[in-house]
Amino acid sequence: MKSHRQELWFEVPARRGFINITPKVEAALRESGIREGLCLVNAMHISASVFINDNERGLHADFEKWLEVLAPEKPHSQYRHNDTGEDNADAHLKRTIMGREVVVAVTAGQLDFGPWEQIFYGEFDGHRRKRVLIKIIGE
Amino acid sequence: MKSHRQELWFEVPARRGFINITPKVEAALRESGIREGLCLVNAMHISASVFINDNERGLHADFEKWLEVLAPEKPHSQYRHNDTGEDNADAHLKRTIMGREVVVAVTAGQLDFGPWEQIFYGEFDGHRRKRVLIKIIGE
Amino acid sequence: MKSHRQELWFEVPARRGFINITPKVEAALRESGIREGLCLVNAMHISASVFINDNERGLHADFEKWLEVLAPEKPHSQYRHNDTGEDNADAHLKRTIMGREVVVAVTAGQLDFGPWEQIFYGEFDGHRRKRVLIKIIGE
Repeated sequence: MKSHRQELWFEVPARRGFINITPKVEAALRESGIREGLCLVNAMHISASVFINDNERGLHADFEKWLEVLAPEKPHSQYRHNDTGEDNADAHLKRTIMGREVVVAVTAGQLDFGPWEQIFYGEFDGHRRKRVLIKIIGE
Repeated sequence: MKSHRQELWFEVPARRGFINITPKVEAALRESGIREGLCLVNAMHISASVFINDNERGLHADFEKWLEVLAPEKPHSQYRHNDTGEDNADAHLKRTIMGREVVVAVTAGQLDFGPWEQIFYGEFDGHRRKRVLIKIIGE
Repeated sequence: MKSHRQELWFEVPARRGFINITPKVEAALRESGIREGLCLVNAMHISASVFINDNERGLHADFEKWLEVLAPEKPHSQYRHNDTGEDNADAHLKRTIMGREVVVAVTAGQLDFGPWEQIFYGEFDGHRRKRVLIKIIGE
């Protein structure tokens, strides 16, 4: 069994944003030399997300609006987590909806994707450097 | 390390529906000959879901009603994704709540399940042929 | 390839509660002797969750309040699942939001975590003994 580990670093210049990281995960897979196995991609921060969906700008605007309805940022005082001096409780909730991680099959040296699947980093508390972990195991 | 890959195809004759795919995943596991490992089952479409829950008709009705509250289908015009000519933005959001994938332990050649765990395909934009991917790795 | 399986048992003395299970997962990993691989941790019950987030009491209070807004327990009669004699339909929905499982990278014999990641068992229908499964594969 082979394994490969890689970190990706991001600094989103806004509180929230989505970044298509599919090319970077594909590059890590090529570097790993693994042909058959599983590829885990996870946010290393608990106010960020890794998820698979469509690379379509309108949908991303819908996600932004929808998450603000389900877990509004303001008023910051509505959340007990923010009593600690933080203002990012909503980011923890939004990331819960969007998910921490994806596991993708590796087949014949490729991410084994359906036609529109793309991997995104979802930032919900940006303006600072944060990391994603890629771990691939297989042969 | 062994690996096994299989696709399942579905055509749900309605916009939304749930299908218990546990027997098909068990059949794939038997075919793989893998006794110890991990089994990934994921929707290959971004408007569908694979999730684990109870095989109980009332609960499925509750899921349907609940998802329509959290991410209503209509009016289609409320979503920017639908400006592209699609009408399925709500399906992308519903699938986000329900999840893209499950990872199940394989122990002694069986799906290592608790007493009521069953795997479902969740369709949120049906009336067409769509796929699920099964990837099993182990020994 | 090596594999290791372990169950954790809990009896939460309330309907809902969160338990930090990180030390128990770390102990299972040490026992496994696995240095590189993947660690799956999942609820074996469909009214409970395993998730990764912050070990902060205020945030846990926020999760409790938020989940009651998104999937209220009462009135029990609002859910068709409860027509079967159950009263825990809301627990199935809450667990769907929080997730069934996490997959964590294992690197150099450690859970490969970002700075604040901790693994929690989320109970949404307690007052009885319930289980979590740990399955680790790798080398």
